[in-house]
Amino acid sequence: MREVAVIGVGITKWGELWEKSLRTIFVETALLALDDAGIDKVDSMHIGSMSSGLFVGQEHIASLLADYLGQTPVPSSRIESACASGGLALRLGFMEVASGMSDVVLVGGVEKMTDVSGHEATYALGTAADQEYEGYHGLTFPGLYALIARAHMQKYGTTREQMALVSVKNHRNGAKNPLAQFPFEITVDSVLNSVMIADPLRILDCSPITDGAAALILCPAEMARKMKKPVVKIIGTGHATDMIALNQRKDITWLEATYQAAKQAYTMADKKPEDIDFLEVHDCFTIAEILVIEALGLVKKGKGGEAYEDEITFFEGKIPVNTSGGLKAKGHPVGATGVAQAIEVVKQLRGEPGERQLKDPKIGLTQNMGGSGGSTVVHIFEKE
Amino acid sequence: MREVAVIGVGITKWGELWEKSLRTIFVETALLALDDAGIDKVDSMHIGSMSSGLFVGQEHIASLLADYLGQTPVPSSRIESACASGGLALRLGFMEVASGMSDVVLVGGVEKMTDVSGHEATYALGTAADQEYEGYHGLTFPGLYALIARAHMQKYGTTREQMALVSVKNHRNGAKNPLAQFPFEITVDSVLNSVMIADPLRILDCSPITDGAAALILCPAEMARKMKKPVVKIIGTGHATDMIALNQRKDITWLEATYQAAKQAYTMADKKPEDIDFLEVHDCFTIAEILVIEALGLVKKGKGGEAYEDEITFFEGKIPVNTSGGLKAKGHPVGATGVAQAIEVVKQLRGEPGERQLKDPKIGLTQNMGGSGGSTVVHIFEKE
Repeated sequence: MREVAVIGVGITKWGELWEKSLRTIFVETALLALDDAGIDKVDSMHIGSMSSGLFVGQEHIASLLADYLGQTPVPSSRIESACASGGLALRLGFMEVASGMSDVVLVGGVEKMTDVSGHEATYALGTAADQEYEGYHGLTFPGLYALIARAHMQKYGTTREQMALVSVKNHRNGAKNPLAQFPFEITVDSVLNSVMIADPLRILDCSPITDGAAALILCPAEMARKMKKPVVKIIGTGHATDMIALNQRKDITWLEATYQAAKQAYTMADKKPEDIDFLEVHDCFTIAEILVIEALGLVKKGKGGEAYEDEITFFEGKIPVNTSGGLKAKGHPVGATGVAQAIEVVKQLRGEPGERQLKDPKIGLTQNMGGSGGSTVVHIFEKE
Repeated sequence: MREVAVIGVGITKWGELWEKSLRTIFVETALLALDDAGIDKVDSMHIGSMSSGLFVGQEHIASLLADYLGQTPVPSSRIESACASGGLALRLGFMEVASGMSDVVLVGGVEKMTDVSGHEATYALGTAADQEYEGYHGLTFPGLYALIARAHMQKYGTTREQMALVSVKNHRNGAKNPLAQFPFEITVDSVLNSVMIADPLRILDCSPITDGAAALILCPAEMARKMKKPVVKIIGTGHATDMIALNQRKDITWLEATYQAAKQAYTMADKKPEDIDFLEVHDCFTIAEILVIEALGLVKKGKGGEAYEDEITFFEGKIPVNTSGGLKAKGHPVGATGVAQAIEVVKQLRGEPGERQLKDPKIGLTQNMGGSGGSTVVHIFEKE
């Protein structure tokens, strides 16, 4: 297999983009990525989208977006694994370049979520859970993560304040990201006093409904070395599944798919958790980020909450997590999230994020999760 | 890249399967495929489904189906390209084995279409077209293909009778396929006098709404040679896109994506159209099969209709097309169709289809199409 590098990234301001349609949002970011790479044609496209069918009544976006980007007749695939769709599109794009099937591959993610009512959006997101055994009985995503949060609190003594700190940290980072949906700081008090959604989770524990897209360009590392930008390689990829429904899992406080996907990626990259300089992870709810850093091996099982009191995941901490603002502050257009995570890592490794630039990072990791952890994709990036 | 072979296939009776859910239909076929391959674990899964979201309110089926097949934590991906979803899942599974990322990959396709009303099914299928420029103005899929049919009739003199013969031929084949949804013969008269759907297309020109699934197992050819069954290799794969909306195309009587995908597959396999012994192609409407055999280079442009009067695509003809019964008689659970096409080709090459067995075929081709031709996947199979 060939070495693979990222040679272009594109992302625009996320939020409630009522004046733009799905195809427009996607094409804007894809053009930025092409421009950043200094090319105008690709050999293939992989696009992550969770539910363009339920959100905008449009499937077959692989064809639609190749068409509107002026790339026909290139092969174009739409990839779905709920909120891990973007990360999975990246993995399949990586595979295509690594295998030698194609040289230049565009990986994109897009979701247009605000064209439907809040009720319809909650239904569409709920299709990432087991509809027959969870959805039909009234469980929504805040409800599922509330069950997880309560179990983690009881088992490990995790506190409401620790969860609030996840959100405070991500908003502090997001305040330095002009493309974030909510680029401002919040306090522990504001989280604890915000509207209750599903006890113990409040509105400021939850990532928002967002319109947005993200795109990047992959090519063989050999080709990337002939270009002007710093070479950022993907040195590890991992992908795993778990039981889709919480009631089928041995322990709902443990993200087995994240653990398994990370194990694959660490092995492939020949790295350990302590080798990672910074991460972008899937904080769809505050409790999720706590479970994720445990499953990635950054802290011991059950110690995720304490890590936020110690501030090790904060910008100045030992292992900065979500310098972009994370899903909470940056926004969460579900199919685009995994691609945007990779873009933040590439920007940090290239030294481009301005005010939120980390000090000389070498290795970054992304973790992108579907549903309540039923699927997870992990990637490790290294600056050459 | 490594050589890739198919070592197991599984398919069940298709139709209106009201007593079974999506997960049940899929798991039944996947277990048959595992059994046929003589294995019980895979390294990875790729599942084609067009719109599980709109048809049964369930996305994230990559996780759901890995779970219900007892395969977690293996990587599992859901692939979508409208009615070409199954063919595209096969292509990405092929890529994974060819690249060396995985050895044993399950490729599946599934669609549960009869849990919604006819109106809702028409809407869900319509999401394969350009919703904003076709769907919102009232065009449905029979309408789109009716426009194509009328244009082909005017430009090339194709007749209503020639189109009817496509359906007659596919039902004649399907009558010998006990797993087909409609395993019986029909006549030209019955097609011409059936209910009008979208002039000039009548109900017996249209493939049906179907519940069904199909699954197969891929592995390196080297591994397949150590097993007991005849070795069937995938020697060519092609995938291409076209403008999604008919109004954007230079010529709506020509399937450019099919032409481009076939060119790639022929080149990779080092074969010409005349080397192909038989085919399974995408007859979603009778006119589609006529356009497809033109774009695949089996007959000259505009001569597709005449080929049915000459019966060259019939079972006893020079190039038998759709021995399975095609989408028309076998049924068309959209995400499963591309995988089922590959299964028919593998069965023919292995000498297994019984009453509809062709005489000693060596090379077969599948063509699976999304929307009104906005995406197409072509594969070429060879018996070793």
